[in-house]
Amino acid sequence: MGAAERPTVEVPLKFSHKLRAATKRNSSFLCIGLDPDPRLIPHNHIPLFIQEIVEATADLVCAYKPNLAFFEALGTGGMNVLLEALQPVPAHIPIIADAKRGDVGNSSRFYAQAIFEQYEFDALTVNPYGGHDSLAPFTEYAGKGIFVWCRGSNPGSADFQDLALEDGRRLYEAVAQKAAEWNVNGNVNLVVGATRPEELRRVREICPEMWILSPGVGAQQGELQATVEAGLDGNGEGLIINASRSILYARRDDYRLAARQAAEQLRGEINLQRDRVLAQRE
Amino acid sequence: MGAAERPTVEVPLKFSHKLRAATKRNSSFLCIGLDPDPRLIPHNHIPLFIQEIVEATADLVCAYKPNLAFFEALGTGGMNVLLEALQPVPAHIPIIADAKRGDVGNSSRFYAQAIFEQYEFDALTVNPYGGHDSLAPFTEYAGKGIFVWCRGSNPGSADFQDLALEDGRRLYEAVAQKAAEWNVNGNVNLVVGATRPEELRRVREICPEMWILSPGVGAQQGELQATVEAGLDGNGEGLIINASRSILYARRDDYRLAARQAAEQLRGEINLQRDRVLAQRE
Repeated sequence: MGAAERPTVEVPLKFSHKLRAATKRNSSFLCIGLDPDPRLIPHNHIPLFIQEIVEATADLVCAYKPNLAFFEALGTGGMNVLLEALQPVPAHIPIIADAKRGDVGNSSRFYAQAIFEQYEFDALTVNPYGGHDSLAPFTEYAGKGIFVWCRGSNPGSADFQDLALEDGRRLYEAVAQKAAEWNVNGNVNLVVGATRPEELRRVREICPEMWILSPGVGAQQGELQATVEAGLDGNGEGLIINASRSILYARRDDYRLAARQAAEQLRGEINLQRDRVLAQRE
Repeated sequence: MGAAERPTVEVPLKFSHKLRAATKRNSSFLCIGLDPDPRLIPHNHIPLFIQEIVEATADLVCAYKPNLAFFEALGTGGMNVLLEALQPVPAHIPIIADAKRGDVGNSSRFYAQAIFEQYEFDALTVNPYGGHDSLAPFTEYAGKGIFVWCRGSNPGSADFQDLALEDGRRLYEAVAQKAAEWNVNGNVNLVVGATRPEELRRVREICPEMWILSPGVGAQQGELQATVEAGLDGNGEGLIINASRSILYARRDDYRLAARQAAEQLRGEINLQRDRVLAQRE
């Protein structure tokens, strides 16, 4: 698929529109994380492996999310490997660079240039610790999507993100509120782990209309039902569920078919839970 | 200098020892940030410009700190530019990669592999937002140095880092305390902006023996005297002051000489303030 279809598909210019169009076209709220771990992939050609996964799943997803750590670990050629790996991604499927970037403003400006101008990714995950001027250079790209790491799926996310503030909020709630405040270009979104449905529900209350990227289903044991219930917005949208290892490494033999089956199954489960939630709301 | 000297200098294996040796050898607590901004450099050959700066200052500094954002912004060849730029750095001067990395544990493991194995940098700045398992993959490299971004020099750092917790601490204090707790390999250090002497003083109280990297002098208007007073440890060490733009772009003509003079002057001012503090303590 992919390349042959490109001329016939009109791709929206704004990230959120592109993402929504992809969810509708593929009936999917599934994002596949592209995290090539050399110890787990079935052969030793990383770009080919990612290409095979993309070709096997491009009609089942609403986005791909390559994690830059895995490509940087390959050394100076890492970003070329990533670009080669992403070649078969159809133009209508957004690519979210997972890089958790963020630094003082002058440095963030250069990270934004790398991600959005050099590599032309559709969206980026960012780390909010540096505050407003550390994120503004990203959000200024109005056509691009910014996913603020709000509440992680990992155990350590409790260390600081769950700390109670003197005004009764938790830190992740303060982050969600600031993200809403900084969303002047309508391109700010959030990352909230699927391992924490209660926190996801709270973030959805604070930011009723943002897209939330929810990793941690599968390898990290997030609960899908609770995640979908807590994360959907008022229109039954606004939530994308990320899975990486459970799809990429579903099996070592027949890995392409296994990835497709795992993606198809997870897409189906998400849609089933979504239908259930929408039925309850009526 | 540099290459010719390498065989004769014994370089300690552990980062903190290498850093301390460099401060003594060059009588310097000055770190120069290598942030090549194409709009500011006097010619358009970035690796050559950084090489010229290094060659003009290598006997005046205790460390160099390239900021990876500026090299990633160059595209797929960016890390090769950085490696070329760093060639004249003498083996006894530690290189701190400023990249503010941090993600869920499995991803951080790959960032650590990139920074410490592929590029063999001596140290790395990290972002603590993801908590313990997001930093453990870095601190496990016992010979390397980890600088936890604790309190930034930028205005936005107040947004979250200064938030009051319900137990009376500020978030940056909680980060400093956790950094101390996670310092099982003796390789955890901190970043605290020179723009905030009061916060620096508080962090020094919490972590009496860690190295603190303090950016923000010069272009960001940090106060040197207050920074040195607040940041030095009980031995009159443990503090490195970073300057980037005020040295790299001191002048457009005669920029090598200007960089050397600016570095020499700042090194001298730091040492003067340090002598003053040590005299007061007696």
